Amino acid sequence: MKKIEGGITAATGFLATGICAGIKKEKKDMAMVYSKTPCKTAGTFTTNLVKAAPVKWDRKVVRESGFSQAVVVNSGVANACTGQAGYQYCEDTAKKAGEVLGVPAGSVLVASTGVIGKQLPMDIILKGVEALQKNLSDTTDGALLAAEAIMTTDTMPKQVAYEFEVGGKKAVIGGMCKGSGMIHPNMATMLCFLTTDIAIDKMLLQHALSEVVQDTFNMVSVDGDTSTNDTVLLMANGMAGNAEITEENADYKVFLEALYQVMGFLCKKIAGDGEGATALLEMKVIHATTKDQAKQLCKAVVTSSLVKTAVFGHDANWGRILCAMGYAGAIFDPEKTDIYFESAAGKLKIVENGMDAGYSEETATKILSEKEVAIIADIKEGSESAVSWGCDLTYDYVKINGDYRS
Amino acid sequence: MKKIEGGITAATGFLATGICAGIKKEKKDMAMVYSKTPCKTAGTFTTNLVKAAPVKWDRKVVRESGFSQAVVVNSGVANACTGQAGYQYCEDTAKKAGEVLGVPAGSVLVASTGVIGKQLPMDIILKGVEALQKNLSDTTDGALLAAEAIMTTDTMPKQVAYEFEVGGKKAVIGGMCKGSGMIHPNMATMLCFLTTDIAIDKMLLQHALSEVVQDTFNMVSVDGDTSTNDTVLLMANGMAGNAEITEENADYKVFLEALYQVMGFLCKKIAGDGEGATALLEMKVIHATTKDQAKQLCKAVVTSSLVKTAVFGHDANWGRILCAMGYAGAIFDPEKTDIYFESAAGKLKIVENGMDAGYSEETATKILSEKEVAIIADIKEGSESAVSWGCDLTYDYVKINGDYRS
Repeated sequence: MKKIEGGITAATGFLATGICAGIKKEKKDMAMVYSKTPCKTAGTFTTNLVKAAPVKWDRKVVRESGFSQAVVVNSGVANACTGQAGYQYCEDTAKKAGEVLGVPAGSVLVASTGVIGKQLPMDIILKGVEALQKNLSDTTDGALLAAEAIMTTDTMPKQVAYEFEVGGKKAVIGGMCKGSGMIHPNMATMLCFLTTDIAIDKMLLQHALSEVVQDTFNMVSVDGDTSTNDTVLLMANGMAGNAEITEENADYKVFLEALYQVMGFLCKKIAGDGEGATALLEMKVIHATTKDQAKQLCKAVVTSSLVKTAVFGHDANWGRILCAMGYAGAIFDPEKTDIYFESAAGKLKIVENGMDAGYSEETATKILSEKEVAIIADIKEGSESAVSWGCDLTYDYVKINGDYRS
Repeated sequence: MKKIEGGITAATGFLATGICAGIKKEKKDMAMVYSKTPCKTAGTFTTNLVKAAPVKWDRKVVRESGFSQAVVVNSGVANACTGQAGYQYCEDTAKKAGEVLGVPAGSVLVASTGVIGKQLPMDIILKGVEALQKNLSDTTDGALLAAEAIMTTDTMPKQVAYEFEVGGKKAVIGGMCKGSGMIHPNMATMLCFLTTDIAIDKMLLQHALSEVVQDTFNMVSVDGDTSTNDTVLLMANGMAGNAEITEENADYKVFLEALYQVMGFLCKKIAGDGEGATALLEMKVIHATTKDQAKQLCKAVVTSSLVKTAVFGHDANWGRILCAMGYAGAIFDPEKTDIYFESAAGKLKIVENGMDAGYSEETATKILSEKEVAIIADIKEGSESAVSWGCDLTYDYVKINGDYRS
């Protein structure tokens, strides 16, 4: 298993592109992904009660047929809180894409990200679909254009691909995602599109996606806000030529591991590129009794505004970490807990049995000044652990969100 | 019932003061409250698993005897995560105060606020207790000095008093509180001290406090972080001379209403003085089916970083409000919901049935530019409602918390 160049077009049979359709001013704002053959398709979606129209459309496609062959994405307008008209626009977009691509409208997924409450500019979208089809490419260029076109406040495109072997055949998973704000656990986080050429049973594909989402995207928080549009889609076209995976055998495990690598990579990209962030914050809870307990403790820490501002200030204010664990809703013994800081600059114990470990403030500040910072809490109970990812809270987060629409 | 001048010393028989003891540099940092006679005492405390030593001490006093006669408070050091030594320091402080005041150590409550993880400077504290006793005063000056001495990042002292009549006797509730950051529902929020001269049964006193806390302090959020030290204490010395209230009669209802006025006033002061805040944000959910449902929806909105930054930017980004309600965990129908903005500058419907109501952005921005802004969500289901309070999220919040300890 190895990381390779490229992203959403790395797996055999997938094409993609991105264009400036005119929704945003002089920025790419529409992307298309297309598979030469129909794909078994899995998806996970926001748990927010307010679901954007494209979430409703894609859920229907994934749950009813479980097959798709293309995705049309726009950035700039979220198509959320747009009523019946908004849903109709998803259908119109899928229909148009179906026409130009020569596939059924019901096999076209759609996704949107941007401002809530505005209707899509449908004339621009429909023309955009035509232009996208003409520019589809199976190159790394095509993948990069698509990854760029789905960005909103993201400062960089986010894509990755892994190659692995199943049943003697080379297979690939590639993916791209976007997300920087309105990001918080619970089928968290943004838009993510994954393509693979592996042949696998449909139910098993969904099973794999749902499992890996729990430990990756659902463990990311930028600002505690679970969006209306969060979507992860995984398309598998079977073109790798492996014998179809129909049970949780060794091949399945290799696939699951590759999927974990791809999704883990992408979700760290999202956390590290959180709106206004200067640092990626990784929180590990080790020696927990149960995995759920470890997860709850992890999430509370990366979500705490006070921890996040302390990381921004390179301030080893560890009381805030223990305080956040204390209100996480999981039981543990603060007076048995050790806490460490770790980064490229070293590792340091700052709390021992719930109290100041007598550390050097200078060393702590040095460790906290790196671009990637880990906090490790050892609660000394059992053998389970969990990891979550977030970022610091900065002036720029306030700037970006105090004035998002202008 | 009417609001009167003063605070913690307004009720008959209560004295207070505040001094610069030397914990902080050139700022008042210790306060004392004293009653001429023993007080029935009620308290509510943080739900955080990490409980500061003074919380443990006060809980014991309130639960075991339910009587107290004095409170010693320090700001600067929270005495949280300080182990057995921290608890011993509470006992030592109470003992010293008992000596100088001539009351049992077990009737002295203690409270601390400030940095977590540091031990109290006990020589300063013990000398401070002596100085406090010498300066006790039943004047409004004494009350103000005490209210000033408990401040940390607060920008202003917070106190209030109400006068009311029970059984033909004039009675008073006075109070002071502090709190600006690490503030979030769940026996929320900071330190609050309340004194009253009413005569009331001990269980009923606790019952009243617990009930009013639910609708006041537990509905405030500055930053989503539930502190380790949150404490509300209510002391009743019976000196008003009313016949003791022993059941939930008309007198009890008058007392409850006065308590609600006092605590409502103080908790709005905390929200409006949230760290770095430029505006008090009030969130009302009306026409809910149940009160709990209304409360959950309210809390999610005042806690959302995205709503808070939008208020800071005077930006009518209503999608974020509906989004926050959507992940609140309470069921409602977004597509039936209307949302209004209201302030001194007017009232405006911005969302109708979950969609843009076609409002004027200019008018919305004008309404959002006031110092007190209300959001009203009408979910059109039943007859219950709830209110929560918060504040905007600003550059200064990041500044204050990125560098709190230096």
